[in-house]
Amino acid sequence: MKKSIGIGLMGLGTVGGGVFKALSEKNRIVDQAVGCPVALRKILERRPVAVDPGLITKDVRDILANPEIDIVIELLGGEHPAYEYIKEALLSGRHVVTANKEVLAKHGTELLAIAKDKGVALQFEASVGGGIPLLLPLQHGLLVNEISTIYAIINGTTNYILTRMSQEGMEFAVALKKAQELGYAEADPSNDVEGRDATYKLAILASVGFHTTVKPEQIYCEGISRLAEADFRYAKELGYEIKLLAIAKQVNGAVEARVHPVFIPQDFLLAKVGGVYNAVQVEGDLVGKLIFYGRGAGAQPTSSAIISDVISVGQSIASGKKIPFEMRPPQPKPVRPVSDLKTRYYLRMSVADQPGVLAQIARILGDRSISIASVIQKEADMATQTAVIVIMTHPAREEFMQQALAEMKKLPAVREICNLIRVEE
Amino acid sequence: MKKSIGIGLMGLGTVGGGVFKALSEKNRIVDQAVGCPVALRKILERRPVAVDPGLITKDVRDILANPEIDIVIELLGGEHPAYEYIKEALLSGRHVVTANKEVLAKHGTELLAIAKDKGVALQFEASVGGGIPLLLPLQHGLLVNEISTIYAIINGTTNYILTRMSQEGMEFAVALKKAQELGYAEADPSNDVEGRDATYKLAILASVGFHTTVKPEQIYCEGISRLAEADFRYAKELGYEIKLLAIAKQVNGAVEARVHPVFIPQDFLLAKVGGVYNAVQVEGDLVGKLIFYGRGAGAQPTSSAIISDVISVGQSIASGKKIPFEMRPPQPKPVRPVSDLKTRYYLRMSVADQPGVLAQIARILGDRSISIASVIQKEADMATQTAVIVIMTHPAREEFMQQALAEMKKLPAVREICNLIRVEE
Repeated sequence: MKKSIGIGLMGLGTVGGGVFKALSEKNRIVDQAVGCPVALRKILERRPVAVDPGLITKDVRDILANPEIDIVIELLGGEHPAYEYIKEALLSGRHVVTANKEVLAKHGTELLAIAKDKGVALQFEASVGGGIPLLLPLQHGLLVNEISTIYAIINGTTNYILTRMSQEGMEFAVALKKAQELGYAEADPSNDVEGRDATYKLAILASVGFHTTVKPEQIYCEGISRLAEADFRYAKELGYEIKLLAIAKQVNGAVEARVHPVFIPQDFLLAKVGGVYNAVQVEGDLVGKLIFYGRGAGAQPTSSAIISDVISVGQSIASGKKIPFEMRPPQPKPVRPVSDLKTRYYLRMSVADQPGVLAQIARILGDRSISIASVIQKEADMATQTAVIVIMTHPAREEFMQQALAEMKKLPAVREICNLIRVEE
Repeated sequence: MKKSIGIGLMGLGTVGGGVFKALSEKNRIVDQAVGCPVALRKILERRPVAVDPGLITKDVRDILANPEIDIVIELLGGEHPAYEYIKEALLSGRHVVTANKEVLAKHGTELLAIAKDKGVALQFEASVGGGIPLLLPLQHGLLVNEISTIYAIINGTTNYILTRMSQEGMEFAVALKKAQELGYAEADPSNDVEGRDATYKLAILASVGFHTTVKPEQIYCEGISRLAEADFRYAKELGYEIKLLAIAKQVNGAVEARVHPVFIPQDFLLAKVGGVYNAVQVEGDLVGKLIFYGRGAGAQPTSSAIISDVISVGQSIASGKKIPFEMRPPQPKPVRPVSDLKTRYYLRMSVADQPGVLAQIARILGDRSISIASVIQKEADMATQTAVIVIMTHPAREEFMQQALAEMKKLPAVREICNLIRVEE
């Protein structure tokens, strides 16, 4: 039985500050749950901070080579040097708790193998969905299930923007600006807005949920910056809501993984998840459909997940228990390209207001066996002599749909393919 | 390291059959996760069943005195003899996994103390919310949080009935009959319909979430059988939905716990949980608001939770690890009587169609400082000479509201107090 457990914290930014505060305020609960005192020994932070200077260091060696530190909490964010630090911590026999989605998504398989080899833990509940317990249920509570689908709203910034576009008829740029003013979007919002952040999180969720390795570069990714107020208007008219979903499915032993805006029916619970909230829907063969909903970011929710991981690692250390690895060892599974996807599509285009255009478009679709479920044609704008055509298709192969789009673009009457949005229902 | 772990299953009804099937079909996953073979050794079932007769016994001694059985899965349901069997299993040093909400709600504190004393596990994830991981997050993932509120839709039968009443304008008796025809309600539906089932589950959720003991008899309970189609109509008119909620709050160190129909705003996610689904919303000081949603009953979802508990107990046995008890030791906390409640109320009554009635009612409320937020008075029914008055109050003390109701009933002009429904927002 250990006498005490030492923690090294890397990074005292927003989340790091939250963890520092929560660890200080809740140390009695943590000590009791772990079964021995848990002490924060060193904090790596190069910026000036208002914390006991004896705790602060600018030299990572003070953590990575500190014999009194058993658990490293990595909250630097970004790929480098976080990846190198985590790797070295694990190699030196230290346990690691991190919120770093990028490092986990890109290097999770390698790092987990090192952790296994060294008999230490690498925990990352906080990397997806902030404080929402997601990996704990997937790794433990739902372990016996075969997960068939994951639908996730896992980026609060984009969900906030889409909520305002949908509810208030804002255009993207206006909603983004509001999000930036409120601190929900960064000055350079591309990581969120282009879907990259969601891609990292989906790589982690799908890898854990499907007991395999899904890499971010295997995930088809499309952001929300092309969405227009008009798309939300037509979506409503057709009974849908638009959300940026991270989707992963297991189909015949292969994995499908993609992040892009989707039409989902208005009466789906996911359609009603508004603002910066996150929600992850998983479907298992025994448990059926589950949804986990909560705040996906922020210092306090993330601290909740970090400290939960620290407690579970601490308990293993205190009880001398072997870290439980690979409750279900990962199996390699092929990831299908998006071109294999079969789904329904919403297509909005601007065309010249002249006879026969719809017939030309319908022929292009029909030639590829893409059948049309419904068409909305709006009256022409007299000034520009253009009309709007909105088409909902029946399920079609993505490959054929892209071919059809390419051909439509060549039609002289087609002014612009404004948007193509996939439908999930 | 143990060579194998033996299971004794009590009860091969709907849920027991599901667990039997899942354990058989998924034994490779279970063995791998536990780290040694897990074998079902005996099943207690007195009715004839189509299972290997060598496994079946009618004598509970074959499980409780069987040296080859380490874990007892209790799925008999009901208080007796399940309580006695669980107690004896624990006293004999066996671990117990159960879905028995009634036994846990009534005897959880005693049984957990015995388990602690004997160094064995008593796990009951399946007792609340079927397959939804609820106790695992509350006991582990959210451990460091102070949970302030629990709002739970945890009875699928009543939620199904309320959904049909709300969406289709059915009266209670008709919706109940539909639920019975579909197998969602029992022939004697009182346990569900009168809220008792939800009370047991809330006792468990509140005890676990608040780290204390809340007994079912301390929970104010009111069922749904008095709700009428008219209440749903007025609820909609006022912007609300009606749900049977199990509510627990921590207020100044005391616990508030109650099960009754409530008005909740239509735009709350809980208002949109339809059919037999369950949803539990918890709010923690760090994590904020979380919702867990899924199927709260059924053989397969319940099996998912049971087997998850079996795996976690099995891992402890296989690794020789001490069962982790009392991550946060329970503290006694007072439970406030419902008369202390302060909330808004919806009040529907039928009155004689004559001048001055509303003034009399308003005076009775005003005398107790209950202020009226809005009034709907519907035109009189010519035949019976009665009018309908619907009142929404501002927050008021339950005690005063009940006094006011008693006095209103004495008014000659008041024909009937049709319903009083509390509001949560």
